[in-house]
Amino acid sequence: MTSTGTAPAPAGLVAALDIGGTKIAGALVDDEGRIRLRARRATPAAEDGGNVMAAVAEVLDDLRSSPLWAEVRGVGIGSAGPVDRAAGAVSPVNIPGWRGYPLRERVGERVGGLPVELIGDGAAIAAAEHWVGAARGSSDALCMVVSTGVGGGLVLGGRVRQGSTGNAGHIGHISVDLDGDPCPCGARGCVEGLARGPAIARRALENGWRPDPGADASAVAVAAAARAGHPAAVASFARAGRALAASIAAVAALVEIEVAVIGGGVAGAGEVLFAPLREALPQYATLSFTRGLRVVPALTGPDAGLIGAAAAALGRLEA
Amino acid sequence: MTSTGTAPAPAGLVAALDIGGTKIAGALVDDEGRIRLRARRATPAAEDGGNVMAAVAEVLDDLRSSPLWAEVRGVGIGSAGPVDRAAGAVSPVNIPGWRGYPLRERVGERVGGLPVELIGDGAAIAAAEHWVGAARGSSDALCMVVSTGVGGGLVLGGRVRQGSTGNAGHIGHISVDLDGDPCPCGARGCVEGLARGPAIARRALENGWRPDPGADASAVAVAAAARAGHPAAVASFARAGRALAASIAAVAALVEIEVAVIGGGVAGAGEVLFAPLREALPQYATLSFTRGLRVVPALTGPDAGLIGAAAAALGRLEA
Repeated sequence: MTSTGTAPAPAGLVAALDIGGTKIAGALVDDEGRIRLRARRATPAAEDGGNVMAAVAEVLDDLRSSPLWAEVRGVGIGSAGPVDRAAGAVSPVNIPGWRGYPLRERVGERVGGLPVELIGDGAAIAAAEHWVGAARGSSDALCMVVSTGVGGGLVLGGRVRQGSTGNAGHIGHISVDLDGDPCPCGARGCVEGLARGPAIARRALENGWRPDPGADASAVAVAAAARAGHPAAVASFARAGRALAASIAAVAALVEIEVAVIGGGVAGAGEVLFAPLREALPQYATLSFTRGLRVVPALTGPDAGLIGAAAAALGRLEA
Repeated sequence: MTSTGTAPAPAGLVAALDIGGTKIAGALVDDEGRIRLRARRATPAAEDGGNVMAAVAEVLDDLRSSPLWAEVRGVGIGSAGPVDRAAGAVSPVNIPGWRGYPLRERVGERVGGLPVELIGDGAAIAAAEHWVGAARGSSDALCMVVSTGVGGGLVLGGRVRQGSTGNAGHIGHISVDLDGDPCPCGARGCVEGLARGPAIARRALENGWRPDPGADASAVAVAAAARAGHPAAVASFARAGRALAASIAAVAALVEIEVAVIGGGVAGAGEVLFAPLREALPQYATLSFTRGLRVVPALTGPDAGLIGAAAAALGRLEA
């Protein structure tokens, strides 16, 4: 737990929780999207639901132990999905102990009557990038994360599109190859299966790339090899870029967007990913009204989920 | 030009134009979506832009010659796209004489200062089905036409999603097969290329189906053969259904919808198309929040464009 910055307290703070299969992050965030205090626990993802909630409670207790807590006027939760906005419940794929888990109510019990907002992690990313990131000022944007998985959220008409259950923006599981490889979700040819980090590594291995001795066969290692010109590494990123381009073009054709913002570990490879993606985009975004679409890196980094959850707590997602 | 019905005049009428590459349809429509008067000309699509506008003017003149015109309080135009809402201009793919053509202004000059609204034909279909069709009462819906082409529009949060230029809902040109056959739009594996009527006929022919002597190799003929159990005909509709299922599932994952409404000539084949589509849908709509999605036939038929244009003139599309 670290306090960041010593600026005078703003008019109000909110507490933010970002809940995923690996970590439970918490923060106090001011009304300009600045993080004032952090807390964090590993997610005991394999344990029962009560233990996962105990870790959430510890994060909240860390935040509540700060004198800043007195200024907190609401709580926002961004959770791995699927979520159920109406019920305030979550069923994160990677946290099997939580199925229809009443997370909003349980958090509410720990924070003494403060209002609690729950959103999906895709909506949180979109809210964060629209508030203080690369989608700021855009009425219509797609915000993606390309990492171990592929997810996203949409800004439409200047507002985050949550959808009736809170799960809109699930770009990782649209099929761009209807006869393609089976995806664990049950479909075939999903964007995630083509563009996620482990897929990039596997494809490079299948085509003859090898990591350095003792090193992992990760997308980061493939990116380094691609920068050095290894053909199988270059080709694997090109394939990911092509799948992402087809999916981004589909979003542009369906809802019209000005910009696609991409963050996450794989996007951290920079031009190794963005160059082939931008090259492939005009091959799929062919309609006149999709041609001006920009693709840019995300700005909010690993804090996207916290900042987006804070945006929800501040009422920035309401229509 | 025929007057339909003799009900007492409602509080107000609007004039509607539905402009496509084959016909220019006009109507006077009341505030419950009933057509009170019709007019129509063939589109001189191969001629210069002035001649196309002359045909539009003739349709308007037919409508204006009715005593009902005195009750008209606005004009709505639904046009083949792409459209440019901000400029009031259209560039229909199948009307080469119109490129950036200032249709809204030209129509305005013919109707003496009445307000004129211009929307894309996809938005018009969605507006019509949401107002008086199969998407009535749905907050979130996809409305498609599967015919010689494949198009559509979206209802999100109870409103037609037009997009900043008016072209949102272009589901026909999303790729569901990123390495697939080239599409005239420039992309590959577009839904339209897999599911439009001529594609269904071509695929059946390639696999050994033959039309009756002297008959056309149309999707209607393939549908009749499929009903009779001809394997190549059945398989061709199954392929179209699969492509449509993948695209509808993509929309559901991206924006969350309750219902997909499908009209147009190919959808007129009924269960020959809908049965394989509904069978394939769960193979792509695998995420929990997409599983309840219904797929139903459109109700507004060939009048969808007129009714949607009327909805725009009545201000039903405003946020």
